[in-house]
Amino acid sequence: MFPSPILDYLESVRARYQALSDGNVADYIPELARVEPDRFGICIATRDGHVYEVGDSRHPFTIQSVSKPLTYGLALEDKGEAAVLAKIGVEPSGDAFNAISLKAQTGAPRNPLINAGAIAACGLVAGATVEQKSTHILDAFSRYAGRALDVDARVYASESATGHRNRAIAWMLRNFSILEEDPTPTLEAYFRQCSIRVTCRDLALIGATLANGGVNPVTGTRAIGEEYVDNVLAVMATCGMYDFSGEWMYHTGLPAKSGVGGGILAVEPGRLGIGVFSPRLDAQGNSVRGIAVCRELAADLGLHLFDPSQRAVPAIRLSTTRRSVASKRRRSHAAAEHLRHVGNRLRLYHLQGVLEFASIEPVVRELMAHAADSDCFIVNLRMVQHIDRAAIRMLAAIRTQFLGRGKMLVFTEASSWWQRLIDSGFDRDAFFADDDFALEYGEDMLLAQRFPDRGWEAKVPLANCALFTGLTGEQMAFLERLLERRSYHGGQAIITAGDKSDELFIIAEGGAMVSIPTLDGITRLDAFTSGMTFGELAFVDHSPRSANVTAIGDVECRVLTREAFASLDRDAPAIKIRLLENLALGLTGMLRQANRELAVLK
Amino acid sequence: MFPSPILDYLESVRARYQALSDGNVADYIPELARVEPDRFGICIATRDGHVYEVGDSRHPFTIQSVSKPLTYGLALEDKGEAAVLAKIGVEPSGDAFNAISLKAQTGAPRNPLINAGAIAACGLVAGATVEQKSTHILDAFSRYAGRALDVDARVYASESATGHRNRAIAWMLRNFSILEEDPTPTLEAYFRQCSIRVTCRDLALIGATLANGGVNPVTGTRAIGEEYVDNVLAVMATCGMYDFSGEWMYHTGLPAKSGVGGGILAVEPGRLGIGVFSPRLDAQGNSVRGIAVCRELAADLGLHLFDPSQRAVPAIRLSTTRRSVASKRRRSHAAAEHLRHVGNRLRLYHLQGVLEFASIEPVVRELMAHAADSDCFIVNLRMVQHIDRAAIRMLAAIRTQFLGRGKMLVFTEASSWWQRLIDSGFDRDAFFADDDFALEYGEDMLLAQRFPDRGWEAKVPLANCALFTGLTGEQMAFLERLLERRSYHGGQAIITAGDKSDELFIIAEGGAMVSIPTLDGITRLDAFTSGMTFGELAFVDHSPRSANVTAIGDVECRVLTREAFASLDRDAPAIKIRLLENLALGLTGMLRQANRELAVLK
Repeated sequence: MFPSPILDYLESVRARYQALSDGNVADYIPELARVEPDRFGICIATRDGHVYEVGDSRHPFTIQSVSKPLTYGLALEDKGEAAVLAKIGVEPSGDAFNAISLKAQTGAPRNPLINAGAIAACGLVAGATVEQKSTHILDAFSRYAGRALDVDARVYASESATGHRNRAIAWMLRNFSILEEDPTPTLEAYFRQCSIRVTCRDLALIGATLANGGVNPVTGTRAIGEEYVDNVLAVMATCGMYDFSGEWMYHTGLPAKSGVGGGILAVEPGRLGIGVFSPRLDAQGNSVRGIAVCRELAADLGLHLFDPSQRAVPAIRLSTTRRSVASKRRRSHAAAEHLRHVGNRLRLYHLQGVLEFASIEPVVRELMAHAADSDCFIVNLRMVQHIDRAAIRMLAAIRTQFLGRGKMLVFTEASSWWQRLIDSGFDRDAFFADDDFALEYGEDMLLAQRFPDRGWEAKVPLANCALFTGLTGEQMAFLERLLERRSYHGGQAIITAGDKSDELFIIAEGGAMVSIPTLDGITRLDAFTSGMTFGELAFVDHSPRSANVTAIGDVECRVLTREAFASLDRDAPAIKIRLLENLALGLTGMLRQANRELAVLK
Repeated sequence: MFPSPILDYLESVRARYQALSDGNVADYIPELARVEPDRFGICIATRDGHVYEVGDSRHPFTIQSVSKPLTYGLALEDKGEAAVLAKIGVEPSGDAFNAISLKAQTGAPRNPLINAGAIAACGLVAGATVEQKSTHILDAFSRYAGRALDVDARVYASESATGHRNRAIAWMLRNFSILEEDPTPTLEAYFRQCSIRVTCRDLALIGATLANGGVNPVTGTRAIGEEYVDNVLAVMATCGMYDFSGEWMYHTGLPAKSGVGGGILAVEPGRLGIGVFSPRLDAQGNSVRGIAVCRELAADLGLHLFDPSQRAVPAIRLSTTRRSVASKRRRSHAAAEHLRHVGNRLRLYHLQGVLEFASIEPVVRELMAHAADSDCFIVNLRMVQHIDRAAIRMLAAIRTQFLGRGKMLVFTEASSWWQRLIDSGFDRDAFFADDDFALEYGEDMLLAQRFPDRGWEAKVPLANCALFTGLTGEQMAFLERLLERRSYHGGQAIITAGDKSDELFIIAEGGAMVSIPTLDGITRLDAFTSGMTFGELAFVDHSPRSANVTAIGDVECRVLTREAFASLDRDAPAIKIRLLENLALGLTGMLRQANRELAVLK
């Protein structure tokens, strides 16, 4: 009913290039010449596994040379980078795909994407027999595509029957000991590798797997170790289109690989994979429509790797200080005044996105700029998508430097990054569950500079409670007789969410915490100590309790019941008026603080 | 006092590679052989113009081949891409820097970074005489570096005196009409170009300029048209290091260019530029320490272009509905109830970062997923850093489709993107100044589905005002005598920020808006109609007025002065108690709404 504009766009591209019928299908082996030349499919698969496909996107064809970077990646995994680089270069040859292009002294193929290099890579892949190598390769390709692929037996037979030039190349590689055994099993495995059947949807998903660090985004299965993905993409970028590679990079700017089966695989690193299938080839052996469509997609969709609009998204999502945000720990008047005064010595940052060098560098600058004028730095990592080693190194260096100067730099909501940071040498003290507890810790640090021995937590006489401001001694005495006394021991529930709300609580001594249960524990909404009131909102609007209140240590409360409060209407309206005024004043203060926080967050 | 960990890191790299003294200084001309071989500088310049430099980062040397991509960019600007591509290829040659590498049929140099291609590019640069060409080139390079560069006259003289091979190349280019005039002025301009003096700080800033779309980030001056930046970076990526380019891309993954003067320029597209200076060269003519340092920086700082940790940052920063956020227009009880009921038909999104295909695609999916079940879509663009053509195309397609179905898709805070979107065919109705007004528009659209003829705006009798809930007829009559009547005409100030706050306002008829002045106009904080109260917060806590209140159309108010309110203590405490209870109830409602919004924003 509501068509996707992305599919609409792909359809329009397909319709436009449907008429392009230049080129000829590959005919160097009889089986390839049998493909239907007008088949045409386009597919884009995103890094998170969403697939957009039009035309003959599920029509099978043989993978041919598109297999080469994948087998190269497999060789890297099986033998390690040093062993592979010793046998196969990574320089573009400037030559055609079937040129032998071996280095003069060593006989090493110039790169893994010309036939010589691809056969050498196949030789390096684990497996002693044709079957072992072939199964190993087919399994790997199937993990990339996210489904069980198979070999086109007729194409394979035809490849093997006519692959004389590749046999010559293989024996030349044997001559130079690039292949160290009889090359025949490697050659047959190579012919089978080239005859694996794929669709352009498969190619797009293979591309998305490379874009996704080697994990197929639909199945979640790893197809190649993350450490080799950049190597595979690099050889595709410099050598992927043979002697058309430079021009391809110039115009399209994407690592890519074509095959004479009519497929093209292109990758926007970190973002998406593209598969195009159209069997008519140009003189260089690349799909004519495939080249044209990829160039158009790259231009229209702005996929060019060197597009200057690419940029690091600022890592700092939010930057504020204790002047605007506060822990949920309510403070006494004196403590609150001091914190207001020194509020900008406590800083809170929310980071986001990919923390890489380019995005952490401004964070480093920001932290260092306040190194002299602030004492506490809290860095929230909840919206961070990735932290690379460079970013970890910088944050660790700053934490070490700050700790040495008696400053605090801690991280909150590190959940998915916690283990990584611990493994990188961060101590556990560097982490707080959430901003609230880190803010409280920072506030306590600032308060300790002024009030020794936690003097800011002194007990408040009942008459000095904010709720009772302005009452005369006589009124206070009258009221105290109406208040119920209740005692709770540490951890005991004072209020339970869902309860009726007919009581207002005043803490005479001790502390209490308001919290709601969450998936991974509880979230603290408020925390009170002596002299403070809680439960006002539900008391005022008669809604059920929305959160739990728990005693922190032993607590002594006074409780004003709705019944007692109502009795004041008649018995002591002046007291009632004063209480309501104080209640309204408290609500106003909370509303102003909420508005300050809203202003910061917006 | 607080050293930057980034400088610390660069110092550690410099110290580590100081000991590496392999290679020899260039000696093909006498002047180059005179450089001090142990000089060593490293510099990183970020896209936003922050510079980190260590060692001999300000020591001058001649730019040599690092000039080639810059002159190529200048040729693209002066002659256009088609004319330049007709004369100079973009394929890596696989050959050494001084190989002639002309294409057999046309004589076109294989690429602009071998000497033949660089001389051809110099020939294409505007200017008929040596002086004109040289000045044009020097000016362009100076814009890249952000300071006035000059030519090392002795190196130039030496280059010119010994440049016989380049003369041979130039005459060969003349033979193929790649150079169309006497090649001598071009050659001399080329020798001067290679003799321009730079520092490795200059190289880093040249790189940062390319990373920044062609604009020097320190001076803000454009050095090259944005449309050619990707072309320059593409030839650096495929051909920048001669026959070492493939290996360089494999290990370092950054477009780069080296020069025999000892400089290397590398670029992380969209992010930063690197300059390294160390004159000892390897057999391929690249700085030995330069190669080693760049490889180390790329690995340590995760700069590799194909690093799979690169990814699009999610564009959706916030996704919510009218259930959690509301316009500042306060609604009558019936209207508020209806909006609560249908709240998820009005959706608000905040987008962020770079809107490119990979990041807009999930936005497209989200909008289409709610196309059937929602009517109003508001998209806030305040945190967007860049919108590319692909993203604009997708948003335009969805807006057109939605409008055709009677749905609304509008953009807020588009400021920096407004002109771009208008130019791309968006109509002015697609834009609202901020979320508040767009939300009100969307709410009105939802209300109109239920209440015809704006029936949700009916006048409320004074006795039905929320503030007076629960008063008896007699009490109401008593109170009305205490209330002052005030009338305002449209646009008139009712309250001015900074005023004393001794009055509480009730709207009998008409509307009013609370706002604060901002840099670009005003921000609406609240809007009221008949039956609503305003001015409570300052009335309760005695603070001065924090915002302006203005009449919307003619307004009839009732005003409760602090004096009258105080008189109730004695004269009618029951009324006072009821008013305070209603006031507290109103404050509680506002606080709950603020907490809902805070929960969404966190």
